[in-house]
Amino acid sequence: MMAGLEGFDAWLRSHVDRVEAALDEAMPRPDAVPERLHQAMRYSVLGGGKRVRAALVYAAARACGPAGDQNQTALDQAACSVELIHAYSLIHDDLPCMDDDVLRRGKPTVHVAFDEASALLAGDAMQPLAFKWLTDMKIDPARVVQAVRTLAIASGSHGMAGGQAIDLDSVGKTLSRERLELMHTLKTGALLAASVSLGAIVANAHAQQWVCLNDYGRMMGLAFQVVDDILDVTADSSQLGKTPGKDAAANKPTYVSLLGLNEARQLADALHGQALSALAPLGDDAKLLINMADYILLRKN
Amino acid sequence: MMAGLEGFDAWLRSHVDRVEAALDEAMPRPDAVPERLHQAMRYSVLGGGKRVRAALVYAAARACGPAGDQNQTALDQAACSVELIHAYSLIHDDLPCMDDDVLRRGKPTVHVAFDEASALLAGDAMQPLAFKWLTDMKIDPARVVQAVRTLAIASGSHGMAGGQAIDLDSVGKTLSRERLELMHTLKTGALLAASVSLGAIVANAHAQQWVCLNDYGRMMGLAFQVVDDILDVTADSSQLGKTPGKDAAANKPTYVSLLGLNEARQLADALHGQALSALAPLGDDAKLLINMADYILLRKN
Repeated sequence: MMAGLEGFDAWLRSHVDRVEAALDEAMPRPDAVPERLHQAMRYSVLGGGKRVRAALVYAAARACGPAGDQNQTALDQAACSVELIHAYSLIHDDLPCMDDDVLRRGKPTVHVAFDEASALLAGDAMQPLAFKWLTDMKIDPARVVQAVRTLAIASGSHGMAGGQAIDLDSVGKTLSRERLELMHTLKTGALLAASVSLGAIVANAHAQQWVCLNDYGRMMGLAFQVVDDILDVTADSSQLGKTPGKDAAANKPTYVSLLGLNEARQLADALHGQALSALAPLGDDAKLLINMADYILLRKN
Repeated sequence: MMAGLEGFDAWLRSHVDRVEAALDEAMPRPDAVPERLHQAMRYSVLGGGKRVRAALVYAAARACGPAGDQNQTALDQAACSVELIHAYSLIHDDLPCMDDDVLRRGKPTVHVAFDEASALLAGDAMQPLAFKWLTDMKIDPARVVQAVRTLAIASGSHGMAGGQAIDLDSVGKTLSRERLELMHTLKTGALLAASVSLGAIVANAHAQQWVCLNDYGRMMGLAFQVVDDILDVTADSSQLGKTPGKDAAANKPTYVSLLGLNEARQLADALHGQALSALAPLGDDAKLLINMADYILLRKN
């Protein structure tokens, strides 16, 4: 591991625990009517995941200065919102009409553990809950509106759902590099970049910070997916926690299939470098975000 | 028809046209990437529907006084948002794992006209778009936040999605009247009541108006579904535009199966009466809402 990451490891662990506890607290109780729906929602969102999106919210807020992450409650609400959107997207991606996956993080997927209709409705109910949580934030209402708008655009047809649609449409096709980049930028990058933006919004970033953080979010959003494509062919299943080689087997275009492994690695490195350059004006305040970039680049799953 | 409804008919027709045009304008273009997703979204939301929810937005705003519906652009955005949420819910309800319907308003359902994955994603992308449109409203940000919160709660597990889940869970069961009322209040009533609330929020309703409109919305939301249950057994398919007797055939509990036809009609009348009583303090300003209540009670489809 790189020097200086020990303190970051402890920070990351504590913030993963923090968002896990906040999610547990904020989600509807399993005995609240309709019970089965709430149980399916809790099953999907609690107890697992790297919580990269949540960590980006907290780290981006800290990058706006020592006072940037003072409003921990609002940051928890923003972090829970992005994790909830991510969790809903996984439920729907796993459905038979999409990727038809039966395992997720070593557990049966929601439609297997419950049923297809419950999985559909759980995802459907999680989207508005994420927006409701943003409206719980005790910050200037104009910034709440900006947060809602940011998450809405990142989740919609010009964001995550749009990326999924391009992905669906691409199976068995050779994509141009531009189209592949668009697919990944939307499918994975949009929500990761939105996580950085939400941290900046809660922290009330000023204009220069905003530009730096947006650039960082865009680069790291794409880098995350390039690394995913690399791990799909290089990691073994015990590290990855899911079946490696799946994208290749499904005949999905990836950065590795388009560029080859070496060039994909170079691209990930280049994006990582650009993301760090974007942070330079923020100085030491950006330390957590730099560590997050290293973590995203070096992760094994 | 009742006296005085002629002027209302023209008002309703013009506002149905108005929201139709606003939706056409606000929806992503069919040639915008990802094209197929945007085509599926447009297919579902344009060109049909009674637009009851949109009409309630405009009528509720007018009930807050002659100045209540001055901000027509914001009202259009709110009206489009509730229609978009309604349209997404129909796409997902029609999916094979839910009601498995192949026709909607005489046209093939989205998963038939496109495919199941596109139908899933179209619905998924429409939810955040509705919230994004609310953030387009040029009104005090605190009221935008209130609008987002209102629509989010009405759409989620304590609203429409929750009602769907109870509905799913109820097939073949005898429900208590309380449980049936909860199901209908959530499944249909929540979004209708939210439509009234959104009109009131845009119009900046004062406290007394707010109470009246909330009571009206709650009563009419439930009345709408009681009338639906009645039409399911009394209307013929040419009037209804869908297969009558479907709920009974699916062994779904309805107000008619629980109470019988006569008592269900009495209940609809009683709710209608309570809704009108709630409006009394608003005087002539509530005329459109009174007409809407009559329209909902007397409709043939």
